[in-house]
Amino acid sequence: MENPMDLFPRGFASDNFAGVHPRVLERIATVNHGHAMAYGEDAVTARTQAAFNRLFGREVATHFVFNGTAANVLSLMAFHKPYGAVLCSNLAHLWNDESTAPERTLGMRLIPLRSVDGKIDPAALVEILGRGHGVHGVHPVALTLTQPTEVGTLYSLEELRQLIGIAKAHGLGVHIDGARLGCAIAAMDCGVHEMLVASGVDVVSFGGTKQGMLCGEAVVFLTPGLGKEFPYWQKHSMQLSSKMRFIAAQFEALLEDDLWIENGRRANAIAQRLNQALVKVPAVKVAFPVQANSVFARIPPAWLEPLQRATFFWPWDEREGLVRWMCAWDSTPEDVDRFITTLNHMGSA
Amino acid sequence: MENPMDLFPRGFASDNFAGVHPRVLERIATVNHGHAMAYGEDAVTARTQAAFNRLFGREVATHFVFNGTAANVLSLMAFHKPYGAVLCSNLAHLWNDESTAPERTLGMRLIPLRSVDGKIDPAALVEILGRGHGVHGVHPVALTLTQPTEVGTLYSLEELRQLIGIAKAHGLGVHIDGARLGCAIAAMDCGVHEMLVASGVDVVSFGGTKQGMLCGEAVVFLTPGLGKEFPYWQKHSMQLSSKMRFIAAQFEALLEDDLWIENGRRANAIAQRLNQALVKVPAVKVAFPVQANSVFARIPPAWLEPLQRATFFWPWDEREGLVRWMCAWDSTPEDVDRFITTLNHMGSA
Amino acid sequence: MENPMDLFPRGFASDNFAGVHPRVLERIATVNHGHAMAYGEDAVTARTQAAFNRLFGREVATHFVFNGTAANVLSLMAFHKPYGAVLCSNLAHLWNDESTAPERTLGMRLIPLRSVDGKIDPAALVEILGRGHGVHGVHPVALTLTQPTEVGTLYSLEELRQLIGIAKAHGLGVHIDGARLGCAIAAMDCGVHEMLVASGVDVVSFGGTKQGMLCGEAVVFLTPGLGKEFPYWQKHSMQLSSKMRFIAAQFEALLEDDLWIENGRRANAIAQRLNQALVKVPAVKVAFPVQANSVFARIPPAWLEPLQRATFFWPWDEREGLVRWMCAWDSTPEDVDRFITTLNHMGSA
Amino acid sequence: MENPMDLFPRGFASDNFAGVHPRVLERIATVNHGHAMAYGEDAVTARTQAAFNRLFGREVATHFVFNGTAANVLSLMAFHKPYGAVLCSNLAHLWNDESTAPERTLGMRLIPLRSVDGKIDPAALVEILGRGHGVHGVHPVALTLTQPTEVGTLYSLEELRQLIGIAKAHGLGVHIDGARLGCAIAAMDCGVHEMLVASGVDVVSFGGTKQGMLCGEAVVFLTPGLGKEFPYWQKHSMQLSSKMRFIAAQFEALLEDDLWIENGRRANAIAQRLNQALVKVPAVKVAFPVQANSVFARIPPAWLEPLQRATFFWPWDEREGLVRWMCAWDSTPEDVDRFITTLNHMGSA
Repeated sequence: MENPMDLFPRGFASDNFAGVHPRVLERIATVNHGHAMAYGEDAVTARTQAAFNRLFGREVATHFVFNGTAANVLSLMAFHKPYGAVLCSNLAHLWNDESTAPERTLGMRLIPLRSVDGKIDPAALVEILGRGHGVHGVHPVALTLTQPTEVGTLYSLEELRQLIGIAKAHGLGVHIDGARLGCAIAAMDCGVHEMLVASGVDVVSFGGTKQGMLCGEAVVFLTPGLGKEFPYWQKHSMQLSSKMRFIAAQFEALLEDDLWIENGRRANAIAQRLNQALVKVPAVKVAFPVQANSVFARIPPAWLEPLQRATFFWPWDEREGLVRWMCAWDSTPEDVDRFITTLNHMGSA
Repeated sequence: MENPMDLFPRGFASDNFAGVHPRVLERIATVNHGHAMAYGEDAVTARTQAAFNRLFGREVATHFVFNGTAANVLSLMAFHKPYGAVLCSNLAHLWNDESTAPERTLGMRLIPLRSVDGKIDPAALVEILGRGHGVHGVHPVALTLTQPTEVGTLYSLEELRQLIGIAKAHGLGVHIDGARLGCAIAAMDCGVHEMLVASGVDVVSFGGTKQGMLCGEAVVFLTPGLGKEFPYWQKHSMQLSSKMRFIAAQFEALLEDDLWIENGRRANAIAQRLNQALVKVPAVKVAFPVQANSVFARIPPAWLEPLQRATFFWPWDEREGLVRWMCAWDSTPEDVDRFITTLNHMGSA
Repeated sequence: MENPMDLFPRGFASDNFAGVHPRVLERIATVNHGHAMAYGEDAVTARTQAAFNRLFGREVATHFVFNGTAANVLSLMAFHKPYGAVLCSNLAHLWNDESTAPERTLGMRLIPLRSVDGKIDPAALVEILGRGHGVHGVHPVALTLTQPTEVGTLYSLEELRQLIGIAKAHGLGVHIDGARLGCAIAAMDCGVHEMLVASGVDVVSFGGTKQGMLCGEAVVFLTPGLGKEFPYWQKHSMQLSSKMRFIAAQFEALLEDDLWIENGRRANAIAQRLNQALVKVPAVKVAFPVQANSVFARIPPAWLEPLQRATFFWPWDEREGLVRWMCAWDSTPEDVDRFITTLNHMGSA
Repeated sequence: MENPMDLFPRGFASDNFAGVHPRVLERIATVNHGHAMAYGEDAVTARTQAAFNRLFGREVATHFVFNGTAANVLSLMAFHKPYGAVLCSNLAHLWNDESTAPERTLGMRLIPLRSVDGKIDPAALVEILGRGHGVHGVHPVALTLTQPTEVGTLYSLEELRQLIGIAKAHGLGVHIDGARLGCAIAAMDCGVHEMLVASGVDVVSFGGTKQGMLCGEAVVFLTPGLGKEFPYWQKHSMQLSSKMRFIAAQFEALLEDDLWIENGRRANAIAQRLNQALVKVPAVKVAFPVQANSVFARIPPAWLEPLQRATFFWPWDEREGLVRWMCAWDSTPEDVDRFITTLNHMGSA
């Protein structure tokens, strides 16, 4: 049978367009052997949870769910109050890309905060926390930050500490959406413990799919005792996999020899190559600092459609002529070179 | 590395304890190649949806979700009213094994109906539909049936038609929980079209995981036009997979050459072998007709614990001494023989 | 202006058809004077909450909501778990007459239990509590009992203690739906403290509307510390009245000189008069012991329609020929006599 | 008994601090006579619904609920999609003062839009409607406007038409929160039909409590056919009053001889008197145009606490020194004069 996969052109549309890392797929095959307890009571799951403990340098509570929306929303269940609100960036995936999942699953409100280069403005956080309104208003219960952000920038450790400090001083829980956390760890000169544990984060959505897996994300509670009822939430939220060993095994492969960070590093390097090549395309202006695996740029409006036809990607904000190019763990220098050639062709057309 | 999978003893605990069929895993590897559109807009998904059309002999609307609870609950969204109720068997997985997912996701009530040998008593259905109560009571909007049932029995075509007829006469939608549908199709002398389309079923949870997949279930709308907004429900219910091709590909392999039915046939055959062997174990009484891939039996209370230690399974109703033994696509005659030896050892101990 | 109220014939349809007791209406007028703090921070509310403390012989936490469904559902919020279930009688108002309010507001499941003469069968309670199912099944968190029951019977103190004892032994909270509690207190030889506090009840829906008010019910937490966040639940459930003094004032009048018990006693007496008169109508069979303010009876099917035309009421179960006649605080001996005359006329027609 | 109502000082804290208009209370007493059908099937309710038809100059669908939050939220049920969003002003009561009622009852998101003088900026509305995001983002389904706004300003007819036009062009439903609608009608040179029906509004929360009632709000669907299932929503949202005649009767009195507009006119006049008197208090700066019954002002920070002690009111934004003074239907010129005296005393203290 001819492989239809060959027909779709590679490009920079999304890191969700990439496939599964060979070592991840291999590990699935390895554990596909005999019988195992279902619903996460198996040996592979236990072994992978232990690997997460080692990664974070402490006993953490790790649970595996199906996708990123579930990881974010169920992380936040740990801070649930029926009259509560979750504070997020106005660019957060949670706010822009997860439909009404937060409201419907949590029964809480999202409040979007002003951001600068994709990062929540501390003044906006302070401002919202200064309001108090008894039973009438919603009560902020958690702050969620994305690292790297949705526009490919990074919170410095200092910036993380500042925002987390404000949140903690007001009794809020702190969540990190780390769908592409490996890119952040690869880019910043620090370890997971320093970035997340030491800075006071309570719970992390630890990305699987975008970091090289087939499907699956981890929710990792760093704060001892938090999320004790998670398996129940997982069940009633339709996020409990019966053959859990196959999600766990993927994460085991991802953590082994820091494959997830290595994948992030490769994606970041491709983004840098793209960024540097764009300097020589005068009609294109990079819009945000390129700190992780994505490049946002403003392109001439007339280029959008032909460029999409040549190599598919989504506009970020059509009215602003702003587009997003996202590098994946399997993106190659050749992908960049071919893309730049196409761009130059636009310019000369 | 030693494979910990070797350490867990094979048995009859659940068809979720089995692994992935080799042809399914192979297909995942085949499509793990290059880039593909995310969220189900890829070629593999389209191809697999076309395979479902061929299977059902008509244009159906097929969507892939992560697990069985989601397949059941999101199927029922098609009949949603905020004051609605879903009628199910008092033995339904939906009622007994899916936590509060139905209530929380649908905002509707479940009403459990009396069953005989796992099958809803038509009189109980008629009785509940005879009540009317204006705005005060809940309004039944759908009937859900499980085929094969949770206790391994089968609704005959005549029984299906009768219940569906009653439901339709009252304007209800009809859903089939077909987590193990292949066992039913293998066991009954009929095709998918006859059992489901011709009998008036509106939507089916078409099992993946228990039928040999790694993870994934299909929701198949048979009634034209039904479930048009499903992709939205899927998204806000956290059931939209980004790398969808890898769920679709598994189903493609499962449908090819009727692998799913073949898997059901093998599991059924093992159940029959077990059933027949039990005749010679006087202390054990089979509790329900063995029509698909499970055997329910009453065993001496004193046997329960040592037997579970020897080969893990769950009691179905400890107070009644009722246990469930479930055969999977990968169960073998040797599994049965070893189990019977263990049972006989119990009897002589 | 002619009063259209004169046109509607008095009868035994419901205690919701009755009006407001004059002393209640008078008290509304008394507090309609000047300004008062809104949302329950006013002096009338505080005064009435103190009256509830005196009634129950201890410090209780009393909150006023708009209707009975809200009182029941918000009482149960105190025991909320997202994977929880509430156990009720299969005849409970909560199960039969409050639409999907329990599921939608609480996100929990209702489980109806078998009842005898409207009272939960202790064996059914024991049976359901014996099931355990880890994360898969729902977890019972509360038991709700109605006193008097929906069919006009009463749990004896001994029966209450038995059911509450079973519930407490399994860690469940206990709620009483006391929409007509005054009828129970009037009928049984005991006080509020003995019936509710001493028997271990946690929270009571204390009826207002059916006991002589215009609108309003009280949720009274008897167990210290329970329901501390009630004002928040009340707000997000749309049950916080801004001009609260006018609900509180009605309750103040109702508690004064035990008006609520006096109203119950009068309604009970009318029900007894009706019950005794029915003995002489051979075609009518009283269906349940008449212990409070309602009479359930089986009547000849042919009588139903003409009788409803003569004096409106609702059938309870049309297929069984079972009807309900409900006496209110304002029902009179003349109402009974006229009704019996009508009945006799049916018999001779 | 001494009336504790005498002890609370009159002021400008809220129109919820006022009592019930005598004609409203009188009408309650008038209909408190004999029996009536429950749950809104009575003659008083029908009569009042007819009065609403006359008021709007067409057949409208009028339903009575308990409070303003319920009126707003249940109005919006008419536009419900499970992945939907409601657009509101960032100053909307719905956003700031109704806890999580919108999210929990509707399962939809609220999106706050930038406002100028309390009125939604049309550019902000256009901007949000220009975004499209397939299944990933939420879909705006309705626009809600408050008239008069939460800061006492009025949308002109032209402004209403512009915003409604934009909303309609994008298929959105339009809701008016008219908790104080009488103030708007009294202030603007137009009738109800012109302001609401002709401008294309679909549904109105027609205020009761703040306009002189004891408790109760009306939801009025102006668009034919809209909200047909409202009685069901009302029931499952715990907003169906059993003795409905007593809410309906209040509205009947309010509509008679335009009492509700008269009440608005009186409140507006008091606000104007206050506004004019403040001109002579140099330390106080009125913050928004005074167009209805409220006055927002910036006062010296040091005044806040002593002024609140003298005559209770709430700060609107403590950090900005912004306070709200609200006039009610029962506010008097003497109330203003006394208040100004107190203010002047502050200035000279």
